[in-house]
Amino acid sequence: MTKFILSTRPFKTEHLDKIKEIAPQYQLITKVRSAEDWQNVKITIGWQNEWTQLLSKQTSLRWVQSISAGVDYLPLQEFKTHKILLTNAKGIHKEAISEHVLTTILMRLRGFNEAIIGQRHKKWTHNIFYGKLEEQKILIVGTGQIGQELAKTLKLLGNQPVGVNTTGHKVENFEKTVAISKLKTIVDQFDFVINILPLTDETYHLYDADFFNAMNQTATFINVGRGASVDTTALTSALQRRLIAYAALDVFEEEPLPLSSPLWDLDNILITPHIAGMVPHFQDKFMTIFLQNLASFVTNQTVTKNHVDLTKGY
Amino acid sequence: MTKFILSTRPFKTEHLDKIKEIAPQYQLITKVRSAEDWQNVKITIGWQNEWTQLLSKQTSLRWVQSISAGVDYLPLQEFKTHKILLTNAKGIHKEAISEHVLTTILMRLRGFNEAIIGQRHKKWTHNIFYGKLEEQKILIVGTGQIGQELAKTLKLLGNQPVGVNTTGHKVENFEKTVAISKLKTIVDQFDFVINILPLTDETYHLYDADFFNAMNQTATFINVGRGASVDTTALTSALQRRLIAYAALDVFEEEPLPLSSPLWDLDNILITPHIAGMVPHFQDKFMTIFLQNLASFVTNQTVTKNHVDLTKGY
Repeated sequence: MTKFILSTRPFKTEHLDKIKEIAPQYQLITKVRSAEDWQNVKITIGWQNEWTQLLSKQTSLRWVQSISAGVDYLPLQEFKTHKILLTNAKGIHKEAISEHVLTTILMRLRGFNEAIIGQRHKKWTHNIFYGKLEEQKILIVGTGQIGQELAKTLKLLGNQPVGVNTTGHKVENFEKTVAISKLKTIVDQFDFVINILPLTDETYHLYDADFFNAMNQTATFINVGRGASVDTTALTSALQRRLIAYAALDVFEEEPLPLSSPLWDLDNILITPHIAGMVPHFQDKFMTIFLQNLASFVTNQTVTKNHVDLTKGY
Repeated sequence: MTKFILSTRPFKTEHLDKIKEIAPQYQLITKVRSAEDWQNVKITIGWQNEWTQLLSKQTSLRWVQSISAGVDYLPLQEFKTHKILLTNAKGIHKEAISEHVLTTILMRLRGFNEAIIGQRHKKWTHNIFYGKLEEQKILIVGTGQIGQELAKTLKLLGNQPVGVNTTGHKVENFEKTVAISKLKTIVDQFDFVINILPLTDETYHLYDADFFNAMNQTATFINVGRGASVDTTALTSALQRRLIAYAALDVFEEEPLPLSSPLWDLDNILITPHIAGMVPHFQDKFMTIFLQNLASFVTNQTVTKNHVDLTKGY
């Protein structure tokens, strides 16, 4: 009997052929046609909230391969209850996110935000220069694959970024690293603070009113992690009151950012619609992770690449 | 009798002290108070069109130290007639301009221009990704100090830029170089074309209707050289008709860009108000050039740093 890999998105024939080769008894589907079919879904690629049958007592689901690096939006507790393996897409987006952050930093340093407002109003507003990249104090909160890629790029360009992680353990390409418990006491030393942390119970609203108060008034806050790591009300107020100078946000507590959000009306913010992680050739890169896991899954029901700890949430 | 260095801008005391040290008989002034004073101006820092007395038959002016790298806006022919030495500020702006260009390239690649338009209209427009920096075909027209700095930066980030110069002679950090006579025949191979050439008789309206016709339809044109190297009418039309995809312009035939310019109304353009060359600590950097030349000028009436060929114009 055919077992199903239920996917949120279709894949190219060449990828389907490889799946067939590695796991001949499996078939990739993007739609479930019968109650019986639900019973045969062993694997999913991505996740949809409507797939509640897969979290019932009778589920055959054994493994979820997430399409994103962050897995905060998934029903981790239910996966744990049903002993469902979870793997993520960590590593695919690191170069894209690193380039996105570099772009926002350079835009700020080279006066592009003022130029963009000038262009909108057909105004030639000169004298809007801030500083040189290599002289900036940059704090990268999160020293995983994305943070490391960003630190590597900044170092190539002459900067010495500082990292923040759970314990302050050393990580390559960072000038130094600091434990997250000290975040609020050191943040006033930095021109740029960049959040790349996964969303967990510990990081929910990590960036709150106290945090933005502690930041330097001339500093920029960049978020390419998750929206809910930020207390949006506190950030909005900090930007309105110029407690911090600027924010570049790619992620939000509510996405798409609602039309009613006061963030849209600020002139000291860059809003991008969750595009930092977008990569060309995504399917090919994603499939190298999935196929490696699939090979091990069909052999002995284990996964070897990007296995997520369901308790930690990353 | 005191001789004058007439400057378009004031300088910090520490710089004035150094001038005094090197050339005790000279005084830096920013305003000429009498007809007799005009007679004693031997050197200028920068240039103003109102300084016509300095180009009369009775002039004592011997040396002009320009504040910019480009000298196209100066009365080169009159300097030649009166045997006035000219030096420029080449080298000071190279890192700033290189970072400016990198910013515009990354903004284009990472979909920031669409995000910015989205932000203006409070619209969450997803799916706007173009490509990875290292995969782009980038043509840098001008392989002088700025072009070399940009090529070095792009190479560090995994790209292999191609250069254009007068003869196609080899230049470090460029994957290859091509003679400018071949520009229009090769330009269709590139995703980005960046003008960094000085403005001369040869480069006036170099980028004309034929050129934009020859460019790839998906390509971006970036100008951080001089506005008049571009036939603005041809570029405007090319952008309107989508013969090219995008332009990022920092310099214009008329500056400030007049309110009546149709460029302001395009949605496939980034307009910055001649800010690419803006640098922090400008005075300090400028003074290292000026003081070196001043020392040699007071000794034997020569200049040793950044001497401009008045016939070539750079």
